[in-house]
Amino acid sequence: MRFDGRRRVVIEHVEPEIECGEFPIKRTPDESVVVEADIFADGHDQVNALLLYRHEQDKQWQKVPFIPVGNDRWQAEFKVSMIGIYRYTVEAWIDHFKTWRENLQKKYFAGQDIAVELQIGMEYIQSAAENTGKNIAVILNEWANRLGQEKDQSEAFDLVLNKDLTQLMEQYGEKLFATRYEKELPVRVDRQKALFSAWYELFPRSASSKPGQHGTFKDVEKLLPEISEMGFDIIYLPPIHPIGTTARKGKNNAIKAKKSDPGSPWAIGSPEGGHKAIHPQLGTIDDFRHLVDKAREYDMEIALDLAYQCSQDHPYVKEHPQWFRWRPDGTVQYAENPPKKYQDVLPINFENDDWKALWEELKSVVTFWIDKGVHVFRVDNPHTKPMAFWRWLIDEIKKQYPDVIFLSEAFTRPKVMYRLAKVGFTQSYTYFTWRNTKHEFIEYLSELTRSEPNNYFRPNFWPNTPDILPEHLQFGGPQAFVIRLLLATTLSSNYGIYGPVYELQLSQAVSDKDEYIDSEKYEIHHWDRSQPNPLKSLIRKMNRIRREIRALQHTNNIRFIPCNNEQILAFLKLDPDNIEHVLVVINLDVHHDHNGFVDLPLDMLNIKHDEPFRVHDHLSEMTFIWQGSHNYIELRHDPYPAHVLSISPRLHKEQDFDYYM
Amino acid sequence: MRFDGRRRVVIEHVEPEIECGEFPIKRTPDESVVVEADIFADGHDQVNALLLYRHEQDKQWQKVPFIPVGNDRWQAEFKVSMIGIYRYTVEAWIDHFKTWRENLQKKYFAGQDIAVELQIGMEYIQSAAENTGKNIAVILNEWANRLGQEKDQSEAFDLVLNKDLTQLMEQYGEKLFATRYEKELPVRVDRQKALFSAWYELFPRSASSKPGQHGTFKDVEKLLPEISEMGFDIIYLPPIHPIGTTARKGKNNAIKAKKSDPGSPWAIGSPEGGHKAIHPQLGTIDDFRHLVDKAREYDMEIALDLAYQCSQDHPYVKEHPQWFRWRPDGTVQYAENPPKKYQDVLPINFENDDWKALWEELKSVVTFWIDKGVHVFRVDNPHTKPMAFWRWLIDEIKKQYPDVIFLSEAFTRPKVMYRLAKVGFTQSYTYFTWRNTKHEFIEYLSELTRSEPNNYFRPNFWPNTPDILPEHLQFGGPQAFVIRLLLATTLSSNYGIYGPVYELQLSQAVSDKDEYIDSEKYEIHHWDRSQPNPLKSLIRKMNRIRREIRALQHTNNIRFIPCNNEQILAFLKLDPDNIEHVLVVINLDVHHDHNGFVDLPLDMLNIKHDEPFRVHDHLSEMTFIWQGSHNYIELRHDPYPAHVLSISPRLHKEQDFDYYM
Repeated sequence: MRFDGRRRVVIEHVEPEIECGEFPIKRTPDESVVVEADIFADGHDQVNALLLYRHEQDKQWQKVPFIPVGNDRWQAEFKVSMIGIYRYTVEAWIDHFKTWRENLQKKYFAGQDIAVELQIGMEYIQSAAENTGKNIAVILNEWANRLGQEKDQSEAFDLVLNKDLTQLMEQYGEKLFATRYEKELPVRVDRQKALFSAWYELFPRSASSKPGQHGTFKDVEKLLPEISEMGFDIIYLPPIHPIGTTARKGKNNAIKAKKSDPGSPWAIGSPEGGHKAIHPQLGTIDDFRHLVDKAREYDMEIALDLAYQCSQDHPYVKEHPQWFRWRPDGTVQYAENPPKKYQDVLPINFENDDWKALWEELKSVVTFWIDKGVHVFRVDNPHTKPMAFWRWLIDEIKKQYPDVIFLSEAFTRPKVMYRLAKVGFTQSYTYFTWRNTKHEFIEYLSELTRSEPNNYFRPNFWPNTPDILPEHLQFGGPQAFVIRLLLATTLSSNYGIYGPVYELQLSQAVSDKDEYIDSEKYEIHHWDRSQPNPLKSLIRKMNRIRREIRALQHTNNIRFIPCNNEQILAFLKLDPDNIEHVLVVINLDVHHDHNGFVDLPLDMLNIKHDEPFRVHDHLSEMTFIWQGSHNYIELRHDPYPAHVLSISPRLHKEQDFDYYM
Repeated sequence: MRFDGRRRVVIEHVEPEIECGEFPIKRTPDESVVVEADIFADGHDQVNALLLYRHEQDKQWQKVPFIPVGNDRWQAEFKVSMIGIYRYTVEAWIDHFKTWRENLQKKYFAGQDIAVELQIGMEYIQSAAENTGKNIAVILNEWANRLGQEKDQSEAFDLVLNKDLTQLMEQYGEKLFATRYEKELPVRVDRQKALFSAWYELFPRSASSKPGQHGTFKDVEKLLPEISEMGFDIIYLPPIHPIGTTARKGKNNAIKAKKSDPGSPWAIGSPEGGHKAIHPQLGTIDDFRHLVDKAREYDMEIALDLAYQCSQDHPYVKEHPQWFRWRPDGTVQYAENPPKKYQDVLPINFENDDWKALWEELKSVVTFWIDKGVHVFRVDNPHTKPMAFWRWLIDEIKKQYPDVIFLSEAFTRPKVMYRLAKVGFTQSYTYFTWRNTKHEFIEYLSELTRSEPNNYFRPNFWPNTPDILPEHLQFGGPQAFVIRLLLATTLSSNYGIYGPVYELQLSQAVSDKDEYIDSEKYEIHHWDRSQPNPLKSLIRKMNRIRREIRALQHTNNIRFIPCNNEQILAFLKLDPDNIEHVLVVINLDVHHDHNGFVDLPLDMLNIKHDEPFRVHDHLSEMTFIWQGSHNYIELRHDPYPAHVLSISPRLHKEQDFDYYM
């Protein structure tokens, strides 16, 4: 746009805007984008502004008026509906007609003569008519004529205040010398599952119902009814590719494997193939496709692990030796975290001269599996590969397949985790796995949901993973598994568990390490799934509640509320549609029952202070009648150390209640 | 720079950075720019970074190493010395040699064989040698050879840790695939007076020593010794141009002037000329030049008022009618704030089609007066002219005359005031004029000095102006004038008073308005300057103290400290050179004496808790011995309701003291 010194409106501090517009914010369909900006001009003239937005497939901007919210800050909002990229920007101008009208009123009420002012107003209307379509021009000119011909100033003044004229001029008045914000800010809209998902991780090789036998995709198919019944919607499989034999790790990470040891699935690649091949003992590509299709029948998706690293036997090592680091003694550099060595895994050297071919090949791995029906990827250690690579890869894939979801398994420093989210990862693992106390939860969730990352970082809460059995699960007994599940399923709309280790509440760790004894990473397990299992029924219950209550399908809608007991975490999940807000209270203490008082922000919930209201616990199915903000809760271990309470503003007297207090 | 996927280091959240680098930060010579950035890469490799900076006249970047300060945040600092524009940016890279050396140590101490690692290190050194000048290459190759030939691993390990080698490699090691921050961020360096100045405003037409006579520039010259003796360095004159007669305002803003009324100096322009002419009764251009020169002999500068508005008689109105708004009845639009009318002043219509010629003409006004020796301008109501105009004007002027100072007289909404500072104003009026309570001072000064505006907004504190006699001066009696002066001179390094009204402690206001009765704006006054005046001696004292103590020559160095009396404001001004920190305590109560305890942050002042230290009051010239953080102060009205205390960390026993407590 050519510089025009007559553009007087300033637009600054537009939010959200990530790194000066370098990165998109993220949304899912039906979510809002609330845009704020400082908008002002010199002098005392009235300013007006529009929020412009469009899906990148549309040519036309949609327009929403901004509303001033004080101190020259303006706000407007739009909802996204289609996946893909949206853009938004701001347009603002001096509203001369509005300025004129407000000044006219002041002069009129001060008893000043307004004859000349009325003529000026007429000219504004005529000028608007000249710059708009014929039909509107006729109407506007009619108004101008009426104003011009009205000799009685008080009658003319009434015409000026006419609502129809006001609306017409708001819409068709000249937007002279409008300022357009210099950036068009991007929004990436992912599908619904990016925001609301329940993941179940399992090792397919342990899926056989027969002890001692290598599981297959067919065995996994047999588990689908059970996993679906628990309520999960994504089944994530660790790498399913051929496993290297050179420097293969044995049971419990032993440096030397026995012949029978299957090796770590993350040591990808053997003469049988690499990232596009399937471990022969799991089945064939067709078996895999069949599993993917079968899962879909249960409304579940299969997620694969994208682990860009190679065993020493990976075909890449011979075909593309330039993609690896070679040592002066002619050996290839394996992974290290000195003094620790990971001889069974070669990192890729992303600084190699042939990086363009490397990037293309790694992209082809993703499209290969997309072609087999996989649209969800859990990415292994993305923080050890360049950010620029991820940005390119995810952009490339999303251009063609905007529905693909990438979960970042980055347990690393906060700024690195956030950068991965900015460059494109759809979801991310978090520090939830190690957070324990009320203070920690409030602090961490506030950072995730109330500060800048809430626009691009979608947390996925995992109580455990094959790599991490955190201390509270090691020492908290079975109750810790119950509490962690309640926390993960209510704090975050995305969560996952590594099962069946989780349902079975296995808590035996390697001494002084957050790792499992006899980890499935290095051996095949046989899980007896026939036993009745109380945790499984809680999982089922929580997944059902999450599907039923919309407030639990969001994360940024969390608001912690005060409770006078340090062992009770209390928070609201606010319904974006303002219909069914949820209060969650969880007893964090694995050893004792607790009680206390919570303080509800009644105004926010639209409840009067003198009006009783119902809260219904979806766990116990009990209903309580409360009144006022200060309410008693008592959380016993049995049956559930938590309430998930729907709050109904109105008391329906015809129904029955259990009285609580 | 061409995209290279091998650049692995990320640089983000660089600070200071105003509006994505759109506007410069501001400094004066000898001030520091502390730059922070998030700098990190994928993986576990060691990162290193340089801050690059240069004056725009230099081609070469100066380089300062960044130092990590935790959580992937890095910090580096440089001092500016020359006025003009500096730029700074960040360069960061993976330091492979450093990474190698740290990993080598871990392996060595774990007892692993490091033979191959040593070879790799040798190659890093050789590669550095290949990419540097001959002399250094020789030294580096020598190191490589020594490392290559050393067969004893523990000897070789000692070589690796050698400090000379470390330093050499830090400086000359290859910076492969370095990331350069995408922006070069600007710093505008103004001359010293931009940060530290004492302004004295006077109406030259009231400067005559003879009652009833129109003052002249020659009369102002006669006042120079007195004003200089008080310690001011800028004398600011309201507009000195011919004054319009059409719709001239009379005494006390009367709509009709008497024939003898001189009119408001801000109603600029008559047949005798406009913004480049001088009111004939003040003298000639030569008289003005003489005044400017004479002031310089006293180390003072004359500042003019840049008031871009016209009386109806201004030559522009006939010569450039297109620069004004014309009403349908053929009259020209005068200034209004409905229902108030300012018939003696026409605003310029900046939206006119001939805006380019207008801008050039307004610029020529500035260069006209620069040519007459004026390098300081107080700009009248800049918030009623477009931001884009100011940005252009100040940039244009500063390109040619980087020493010119523009003071923004914008008493308007905060975001507008800050924007004016961003687009280029050197200093700005502030809300200090209306701030009263301890809480208000702490809140407002914290906003100005501890948040983003501290990089571009230089406050100038005025207790009064010809337009504003604030309530506390109206009702606080003479003591209020004392307290406001103490506040202005110590809180802010830039301040000014409108005199001699201030020294004379005149407090008669128009009923219910913050305006003077018999304002000089509309009439000529005769001030009897011969009377001894206690406030004058305090002004002299404060200006002397400010010149002597460097900590008072800065504003952003303020740190409020606790005092248990709500009427006592206590703050430190920290010496940037860490030599003489100052503690200021002021009794805000115009009616009563007060005492209380202040709590000093001894660690920040480098004072031990068990060590007595001296504080010397520059107002009373008394010296007190204090110990510990908690110290008693007592502030009586007489002689001064404040202390300005230099803090000396060491007690010099050979000197004498007054004991305070």
